[in-house]
Amino acid sequence: MDINDLIRSNLRNYSPYETEEKPIDENWLKLNTTENAYPPIPEILDDIKNGIDNKVRLYPDPTAFELRKMILSVLLRDNDTLTNRNSIFIGNGSDEILDVIFKVFVEPGEQVIIFYPSYSLYKVLASLYNAKIIEIKLNDDFTIPKTAFSVKGKIMIINSPNDPNGKSYDNQTILELCKNFPGIVIVDESYADFSTYTCLSLLKKVNNLIVTRSFSKSFSLASLRIGYALADPNIIKEMNRVKLPYNTNHLGQIAALSCIKNRNKVYEQNKKILEERKRLTEELNKYSGISVLPSDSNFIFVRFEDESKTLKFIWDLKEMKILIRHFSKPGLYNYIRITIGTKEDNNKFLQAFEEIGNKYL
Amino acid sequence: MDINDLIRSNLRNYSPYETEEKPIDENWLKLNTTENAYPPIPEILDDIKNGIDNKVRLYPDPTAFELRKMILSVLLRDNDTLTNRNSIFIGNGSDEILDVIFKVFVEPGEQVIIFYPSYSLYKVLASLYNAKIIEIKLNDDFTIPKTAFSVKGKIMIINSPNDPNGKSYDNQTILELCKNFPGIVIVDESYADFSTYTCLSLLKKVNNLIVTRSFSKSFSLASLRIGYALADPNIIKEMNRVKLPYNTNHLGQIAALSCIKNRNKVYEQNKKILEERKRLTEELNKYSGISVLPSDSNFIFVRFEDESKTLKFIWDLKEMKILIRHFSKPGLYNYIRITIGTKEDNNKFLQAFEEIGNKYL
Repeated sequence: MDINDLIRSNLRNYSPYETEEKPIDENWLKLNTTENAYPPIPEILDDIKNGIDNKVRLYPDPTAFELRKMILSVLLRDNDTLTNRNSIFIGNGSDEILDVIFKVFVEPGEQVIIFYPSYSLYKVLASLYNAKIIEIKLNDDFTIPKTAFSVKGKIMIINSPNDPNGKSYDNQTILELCKNFPGIVIVDESYADFSTYTCLSLLKKVNNLIVTRSFSKSFSLASLRIGYALADPNIIKEMNRVKLPYNTNHLGQIAALSCIKNRNKVYEQNKKILEERKRLTEELNKYSGISVLPSDSNFIFVRFEDESKTLKFIWDLKEMKILIRHFSKPGLYNYIRITIGTKEDNNKFLQAFEEIGNKYL
Repeated sequence: MDINDLIRSNLRNYSPYETEEKPIDENWLKLNTTENAYPPIPEILDDIKNGIDNKVRLYPDPTAFELRKMILSVLLRDNDTLTNRNSIFIGNGSDEILDVIFKVFVEPGEQVIIFYPSYSLYKVLASLYNAKIIEIKLNDDFTIPKTAFSVKGKIMIINSPNDPNGKSYDNQTILELCKNFPGIVIVDESYADFSTYTCLSLLKKVNNLIVTRSFSKSFSLASLRIGYALADPNIIKEMNRVKLPYNTNHLGQIAALSCIKNRNKVYEQNKKILEERKRLTEELNKYSGISVLPSDSNFIFVRFEDESKTLKFIWDLKEMKILIRHFSKPGLYNYIRITIGTKEDNNKFLQAFEEIGNKYL
């Protein structure tokens, strides 16, 4: 039997998501993925350890009741946003949440609006679900162009702060998009804890908004796959109907609970990332020939005036066992994305950058 | 905006999977879900604990390289089955593996063949993917009827051992189905470690077979969501292309590795379940008016001659804080499914059953 004859026809032109390089050798400085520079604080690691008991044999709570309760009480107090624990969906990372949203809403051939550049998984998912992809190019300053305010479709996905440039969109912009768009607007706020912006308060004003959040970035739980979505209870109800029964793991639920409980200490730790973001931005902006875009996230996006120098830096950094991210895509050839490391990581990076800069800048 | 207008039309007639009752009060004896009666052995719990370190902040290995290597080397030695680590897919439990298979193969309207009775998620998934569901009723003795050997479709799903009756299908039957079916045959072997049957050796003979396996049951890792699929590398390649990049969590990968490393001790522990299965079967068969079906799994399926007595037992057991599983479905009204507990659990159950039996049998 020829297996290729059995595969869905739209997978023939489908390009999968490509994960970033992950060297096995631990001596590499990995500033190429957007993980938190710091591990979870000891209290959280202890809580996870204490969660490893005889209950490991049991299925996780399919409703993640305790975690939803905790998110609700915290969000209610901190953001005055939600009134109902049926406004919360818990997923196996933001990625799975997006997958579930597609399952609820997207029929083959329906329009899905994504922006360029942005997190590349959006396009991959839209393609997987056989949607008609409308890719709107962001303005040169990465703001949202006028066409987005009149486009039709079933789903629109905004990343705020946006990967790779790191800027957030303001609530006025997002509210306008929600009001004008005839479908669901997803705002992926995976990096919002590094920003002063969040559109959570808009959930009270429009019912076609889904805000997704992640414990992978600001809470350093990437390995445990846990994220959540906030939306109108009618949307959350449908998402719960189509999700796999046991989508999230028990230790991820426990870890996320502990993160919320210990959030003030975590935010304190994250302040170091914000300070380092400021320092890295200032240090790199001292070089002529490059400019650092203002960032609300845990990474910075650096522009080279001379495109030909971009790859020289990437290759030389790699020689020195430092990985950063380059996107070999139109309009992005002369940019690099650098994840903010610890102070020591960044010192090492800056020193390497200086050596290379002396050669090329 | 009316959210209901945006939801995919096939979700209007869709019935979601319903998870089983899970009382918060820990004094209940839960024999209603098919979890392992025993927790992971201490060596495995220790390995999971030791896996909680600073790497928690990093994304899990998207390829689960170490786990695939371990599965390969063990399976190669134990079953002489596979020759290639590209024959293995790692998923977030068997459920997600099935979801990924549907993503690869099933277009709306295509035929998916399931059997009745069997694990109810198969029908839910087929419905979610808008497949045309062909539900073939098993013979009264739960064997596969002749019609299954000539049916057409894209996917056929066999559960072996089958939930709820607990019997495995022999390789001759499965081989015939694979040869006759023009699509993919999935054999869900979630419970196969409690059986002497496995169809792994058939992977050498046909290329349209996918065998799925779980760490939730025999390895007591239900909370950590990890399972695997074995198939022709051409199938696995497509599954890897459509899966979410970080589908499985890091601690699940570590736990599964430890399970394979410690498998002989685990199998030793599982022998107690097989012994208890024998004892429970014999004890219950002593009653007139009920009969226990022979089981290859970690549960038994009990038939009441007088249908009206089934619910009486269920209700009285519940009064005594003992949960077992009843399927309110055609042909199954006079059956109950009892998961094999520890010796103490089963003693408690047998005593309760005797009390109730004295009233009704």
